[in-house]
Amino acid sequence: MKILILNGPNLNLLGKREPGIYGSRGLKQVDDEITSLGNELGVRADFFQSNHEGELVDRLHQAGENEDAIIFNPGAFTHYSYALRDAVAAISIPCIEIHLSNIYAREEFRHHSVIAPVAAGQISGLGPKGYLLALRAAVSLVEKSKEG
Amino acid sequence: MKILILNGPNLNLLGKREPGIYGSRGLKQVDDEITSLGNELGVRADFFQSNHEGELVDRLHQAGENEDAIIFNPGAFTHYSYALRDAVAAISIPCIEIHLSNIYAREEFRHHSVIAPVAAGQISGLGPKGYLLALRAAVSLVEKSKEG
Amino acid sequence: MKILILNGPNLNLLGKREPGIYGSRGLKQVDDEITSLGNELGVRADFFQSNHEGELVDRLHQAGENEDAIIFNPGAFTHYSYALRDAVAAISIPCIEIHLSNIYAREEFRHHSVIAPVAAGQISGLGPKGYLLALRAAVSLVEKSKEG
Amino acid sequence: MKILILNGPNLNLLGKREPGIYGSRGLKQVDDEITSLGNELGVRADFFQSNHEGELVDRLHQAGENEDAIIFNPGAFTHYSYALRDAVAAISIPCIEIHLSNIYAREEFRHHSVIAPVAAGQISGLGPKGYLLALRAAVSLVEKSKEG
Amino acid sequence: MKILILNGPNLNLLGKREPGIYGSRGLKQVDDEITSLGNELGVRADFFQSNHEGELVDRLHQAGENEDAIIFNPGAFTHYSYALRDAVAAISIPCIEIHLSNIYAREEFRHHSVIAPVAAGQISGLGPKGYLLALRAAVSLVEKSKEG
Amino acid sequence: MKILILNGPNLNLLGKREPGIYGSRGLKQVDDEITSLGNELGVRADFFQSNHEGELVDRLHQAGENEDAIIFNPGAFTHYSYALRDAVAAISIPCIEIHLSNIYAREEFRHHSVIAPVAAGQISGLGPKGYLLALRAAVSLVEKSKEG
Amino acid sequence: MKILILNGPNLNLLGKREPGIYGSRGLKQVDDEITSLGNELGVRADFFQSNHEGELVDRLHQAGENEDAIIFNPGAFTHYSYALRDAVAAISIPCIEIHLSNIYAREEFRHHSVIAPVAAGQISGLGPKGYLLALRAAVSLVEKSKEG
Amino acid sequence: MKILILNGPNLNLLGKREPGIYGSRGLKQVDDEITSLGNELGVRADFFQSNHEGELVDRLHQAGENEDAIIFNPGAFTHYSYALRDAVAAISIPCIEIHLSNIYAREEFRHHSVIAPVAAGQISGLGPKGYLLALRAAVSLVEKSKEG
Amino acid sequence: MKILILNGPNLNLLGKREPGIYGSRGLKQVDDEITSLGNELGVRADFFQSNHEGELVDRLHQAGENEDAIIFNPGAFTHYSYALRDAVAAISIPCIEIHLSNIYAREEFRHHSVIAPVAAGQISGLGPKGYLLALRAAVSLVEKSKEG
Amino acid sequence: MKILILNGPNLNLLGKREPGIYGSRGLKQVDDEITSLGNELGVRADFFQSNHEGELVDRLHQAGENEDAIIFNPGAFTHYSYALRDAVAAISIPCIEIHLSNIYAREEFRHHSVIAPVAAGQISGLGPKGYLLALRAAVSLVEKSKEG
Amino acid sequence: MKILILNGPNLNLLGKREPGIYGSRGLKQVDDEITSLGNELGVRADFFQSNHEGELVDRLHQAGENEDAIIFNPGAFTHYSYALRDAVAAISIPCIEIHLSNIYAREEFRHHSVIAPVAAGQISGLGPKGYLLALRAAVSLVEKSKEG
Amino acid sequence: MKILILNGPNLNLLGKREPGIYGSRGLKQVDDEITSLGNELGVRADFFQSNHEGELVDRLHQAGENEDAIIFNPGAFTHYSYALRDAVAAISIPCIEIHLSNIYAREEFRHHSVIAPVAAGQISGLGPKGYLLALRAAVSLVEKSKEG
Repeated sequence: MKILILNGPNLNLLGKREPGIYGSRGLKQVDDEITSLGNELGVRADFFQSNHEGELVDRLHQAGENEDAIIFNPGAFTHYSYALRDAVAAISIPCIEIHLSNIYAREEFRHHSVIAPVAAGQISGLGPKGYLLALRAAVSLVEKSKEG
Repeated sequence: MKILILNGPNLNLLGKREPGIYGSRGLKQVDDEITSLGNELGVRADFFQSNHEGELVDRLHQAGENEDAIIFNPGAFTHYSYALRDAVAAISIPCIEIHLSNIYAREEFRHHSVIAPVAAGQISGLGPKGYLLALRAAVSLVEKSKEG
Repeated sequence: MKILILNGPNLNLLGKREPGIYGSRGLKQVDDEITSLGNELGVRADFFQSNHEGELVDRLHQAGENEDAIIFNPGAFTHYSYALRDAVAAISIPCIEIHLSNIYAREEFRHHSVIAPVAAGQISGLGPKGYLLALRAAVSLVEKSKEG
Repeated sequence: MKILILNGPNLNLLGKREPGIYGSRGLKQVDDEITSLGNELGVRADFFQSNHEGELVDRLHQAGENEDAIIFNPGAFTHYSYALRDAVAAISIPCIEIHLSNIYAREEFRHHSVIAPVAAGQISGLGPKGYLLALRAAVSLVEKSKEG
Repeated sequence: MKILILNGPNLNLLGKREPGIYGSRGLKQVDDEITSLGNELGVRADFFQSNHEGELVDRLHQAGENEDAIIFNPGAFTHYSYALRDAVAAISIPCIEIHLSNIYAREEFRHHSVIAPVAAGQISGLGPKGYLLALRAAVSLVEKSKEG
Repeated sequence: MKILILNGPNLNLLGKREPGIYGSRGLKQVDDEITSLGNELGVRADFFQSNHEGELVDRLHQAGENEDAIIFNPGAFTHYSYALRDAVAAISIPCIEIHLSNIYAREEFRHHSVIAPVAAGQISGLGPKGYLLALRAAVSLVEKSKEG
Repeated sequence: MKILILNGPNLNLLGKREPGIYGSRGLKQVDDEITSLGNELGVRADFFQSNHEGELVDRLHQAGENEDAIIFNPGAFTHYSYALRDAVAAISIPCIEIHLSNIYAREEFRHHSVIAPVAAGQISGLGPKGYLLALRAAVSLVEKSKEG
Repeated sequence: MKILILNGPNLNLLGKREPGIYGSRGLKQVDDEITSLGNELGVRADFFQSNHEGELVDRLHQAGENEDAIIFNPGAFTHYSYALRDAVAAISIPCIEIHLSNIYAREEFRHHSVIAPVAAGQISGLGPKGYLLALRAAVSLVEKSKEG
Repeated sequence: MKILILNGPNLNLLGKREPGIYGSRGLKQVDDEITSLGNELGVRADFFQSNHEGELVDRLHQAGENEDAIIFNPGAFTHYSYALRDAVAAISIPCIEIHLSNIYAREEFRHHSVIAPVAAGQISGLGPKGYLLALRAAVSLVEKSKEG
Repeated sequence: MKILILNGPNLNLLGKREPGIYGSRGLKQVDDEITSLGNELGVRADFFQSNHEGELVDRLHQAGENEDAIIFNPGAFTHYSYALRDAVAAISIPCIEIHLSNIYAREEFRHHSVIAPVAAGQISGLGPKGYLLALRAAVSLVEKSKEG
Repeated sequence: MKILILNGPNLNLLGKREPGIYGSRGLKQVDDEITSLGNELGVRADFFQSNHEGELVDRLHQAGENEDAIIFNPGAFTHYSYALRDAVAAISIPCIEIHLSNIYAREEFRHHSVIAPVAAGQISGLGPKGYLLALRAAVSLVEKSKEG
Repeated sequence: MKILILNGPNLNLLGKREPGIYGSRGLKQVDDEITSLGNELGVRADFFQSNHEGELVDRLHQAGENEDAIIFNPGAFTHYSYALRDAVAAISIPCIEIHLSNIYAREEFRHHSVIAPVAAGQISGLGPKGYLLALRAAVSLVEKSKEG
């Protein structure tokens, strides 16, 4: 089973950017924890981060061909990128939306996700731990779809 | 470690009510899975379900005295019970909000949670599996606050 | 055939409360007229009134097991109780929403019913007579569903 | 006692138009049932249908002179015809608004009636049966106003 | 003269809950000060607190029979309980709405009170002192209505 | 100089309809006063009233050919008839909008006129006297455009 | 009979300010025409212009003692000065609101008048001529109130 | 194949009305071009224009019996006539909505069409040429539905 | 201790203006009662009323130098004077906002106070009695700040 | 004559993505039909598709130098890309906006195009056929501008 | 060249008022820096501050006669004084709007300026330095208009 | 000191694009003036322009490492790019937002900047001169932060 961990704009700065909100662990460190749990669960985690909306759209299209599920932190694109929403809807594998911070406890504009209606589910506010939970959820969704 | 699994209105009908949306497993079955994972993680799960907003407020107050964290599915109260919001904010233990269905893919009024801004985090759309993820997250939060 | 007449908050004050709006007949008197028409139509009318949202949710769940249809005046809960809405949607028998006064000719907040979208139909502004019309409508709906 | 059954735009297509929403009985059939119940109750039912707002206004003015009450299904005019609203308000006989379908369970724009605030009451979602209930209600209103 | 001091949800936690906002005195202490001023003014103060909306509605109905005025802190119900609003409007004795904190200086949702339009007046932001002012106001209102 | 006095829906009921709002003088009486002032000012007043939007549109088109200015009371069409707005904009003679009652002191929906932005001016709340003022204004506008 | 012509902010610039919108005649010239018509109608016109909201409030209070009616062009205060609205409502003589330009054909914020609901009537878009019409209307209102 | 070209209010003034927006060709000229292209494509074009909403509703009902498709320019009715919307939805032949001007580049109220959601498609801003494109599209839709 | 009683526009008319809403006691009479209670509490009450926003701003600035607290009835400025809001925020002494009538039971625009978020507290709907309560509250706030 | 056919995000998936909405023909097939009609009309069609907003902006700038008109399907960028809107407005050749599906019959957010106000015209809901119509329209616009 | 530095309400408190937001330099100090830069640039700076809207309107009118440009910090009037907006629009010299703090990073109501649409430009958030930049900009605008 | 001049989409067309709004000087010319003033002030100006949101995000990240301040004209991204907003917030150097035209005097959608709340300040409407002012402001901010 292959699962894509897709991270959007400014997440390359993780650990450096506003640590009070996003924590002090860098993206590399988070990725390693995911890989490690992936090994435990028999899953290969692929990683991709970009600040370019178009590259994220392209990568989602590829994932529709190559991976079994997606864990997607769209960063600020969460709130306006209908192009990403359409890309998620256009491919047939499940996508779990994830946010490090509790977007519902921050600025008004962060309370609304244009991706959420086409995602399978959403996890927010649980920090890097959220990625690990999302990985378990993704595995469970893929297994269920294979059974069902 | 003791964690309260708190379920709001109409969740007693789980398995019978609109199975297309909420799945066919009953609340008892879901509780058993939680207990089982709790055993594995060395956590006691307490369960309480009520259709009465006041009883949920009372139980949250008790939890503030007796438990270490709360996993809370407020059902329809999610969208208007500021009394529950205030109760969650009034106690000092972390609360994880959970929804079986993807509330962002349903009717407009379900897109807004009045509880979310005072919760630690939110998990939605991942079915009964979501409770198990929430249990892991709750354990992690309690451990972190004990360390921290 | 058994039909539940369910009345929400403050309707116990009927006849005493703002008679200019709600009329001078008490709830008991209205219930007697319903029973009387029920006898004529061969229907047993069950009555329940509560000022407690949770008790109304519980009673709706019971009705799903024991009665064939519901005539429901949710009082002020009409305008915000998504818990009652979910309870009506969760049971499989038809529910007719009724209001004594014309809610569309009163304060702005009374113009919107959160129950209406999941009710079979709505009767408003026709005073206690409305309950009798609702009883005829309920009988007709139950018969049709039995035929169909 | 004379009661006008007034039907607005597209109701001439009843039985042919979107039968999933409006049922398969034609307007003639519905009118016959009303006449029949009218006979039983000692009431003459007059019928008028038009797709022209102006003709409906004119007919309401006449009804103010010739009939004792009105049962009015304004069709799509429900949602914007302030001219009809003013006509209903301008005459002194009671008017009961009726809708075949549950307008509160359909498109957003159908949730608001500009006629309702000046109608005596409203019945919606109960199909052709609604006209028969409205007839009973109208008779009751006329009798009460004669008594009172 | 008898005056009911009615407190809504989470006010039982007074002194413990968010002391930065609500102060550090407990509800018992506040009640004692009210009783004491009541004695001075020749008024008996009755006390009732509940986290249950239905119990508050019931108690308001009783007050309509037994007390001369009400001092009501509806807590979070301030912002959505139309059932409480209707209960206040349904009884004929005056009701003074009170809030410990300045609700207009807090979250947006706290700026709107559904109770205020049917209350005699409102006092907010003056802490426990507000209850004592409300007691004086209530006495004054009752005396005026007896004179008038 | 020829000036059209154009009256919209329900104005045929003037004098009979809600005299508290619209006064007790009938349309004929008002027309006579206009004719009389017209004679004084050397102007022929033409009169047309209809409850049919389409007839009003047609009459506006004719006025564009035959009259020099229009005094238009669109009745309830004021608030939604973009067809009338377009008709007023499509002809090249000036149009003065008039309302008997003060539309800004009535229901919310009457506060907005879709005709006003394309009218030369508006007179409201001054009763039948308003038509006489409008006649003077219309004469003045026509004279000015002839001079200019 | 004495009638106050009250002009608000920036109207002292009339004739100089944006002549495309407000015309090229100065305020003095307009006042002279009003005086002249006043002489003809046997009315004394008093004039007051100020850019200071407080002075306009003061002058309205005086008018309540000294004049029989007011013709008021509130300028930009039209759109936000609730203090002026309250002053108009506080005095018992009629007030006619006037605007030189058609405020409904200009920027969005000019479409709403906070004065209009408490004025007797409104004349807009008819240029300086509007003051003359307002004078006739004011005389007519004062005479009617003296008769009535 | 028969296709109805249906034009709404004020389109009879085409060529005379605001030529800067609607062009200088009259409706007759446009109809001739349509007939001519119809001959080329083997299609008979029927024409109907009315300023009366009711006549347009009636003509749509007839078209449902007699024609194969409709090209409909609803003029100002585009923005509020739910009666026309329901008529379009009530008949089973396809309807293409057309506008001469680019309605999205004009006044705010023209940006919203109540007809569009029930039309097959929409062409706007391309002038009289748009009718010719619509004719090609209509032919294509009818052929496809015959094949399909 | 010195406390400023600051009254805004139209309050000079108290007793004369709309007595049904504001009562029949004049401002002088109310001031005397305040002075009298002030004497009892050992407080000097200073009085200032103006219809000029700028004078109220100036007086607030002075109060920041000379008085210990402010009781402020901003009249209609309540709803739009951000200049007064900023003045209240700019000085360091506490300000209690007061309204004679229940502003939440009147027109929509009166439900919102731009001053409230920067006031210490608010008292509304309790008539002239409210000033006396505010005086007690102000004394209590000043004493507390001196202690604290 | 050279015309650019510009396609935005996710249109590379045409034929594979949600065929119920977008049809089963791939982009290549659609392009071939356009080329073929272009040959017939003596027009060269250039094609460009990208999921990157910036590349579309760049290509529009080039088109301003190299092509005579643009047929632009902005995909999801339709609803938020003001950068594309500015690019269309910045170049002097005409642009026809096109959508395969009827965007007015889908989710709320798709009803609004930020491109439309600066486009020459819009065609929506007519499937791949729409591109062919747009080509005819573009040719006609270019010819007209050359003549004019 | 003469340039007016116009400051609105509460700016006389500069240096004393909320120094965290507005800085600790007083208005005099800021004025001196402006004069000094003015000397350098060969410009005379005139200064006027008032808490009275009417005085600011009057001073703007004078500036239209006596100065060449205006640098205007309207303080809280920024957000509602349409009288000031009209005064700025009524005079023909350029006006640069300035704010010490970043109004877009503060309370919602401060995000909207009613002056901005008629100002030449706006500088905000750059503290007292902003006045110096505005002076340079004003000089540049005046020179350009003299050249142009 | 190094300062980045960052320009967003379509600014490469400066001088060619809508010169009535943006002026006739090209970007190169503007950059030269900035360099020249930079030399005078002892500052190196770096320049970057892109139509690609992702490249601007990347460049902002680099600037956080390499430059001391940023002058940023986000073009149309101003109104929706939360990704750019987050990038500005993520780096610790100050950013001054600049617009050539007065965005508050143009289309509604341009009145709101999502960047402004995280910028140090904003300059708009002052044309290319604005960049030079921004350079002075940036130097001043950097110096102050070095001192502070």
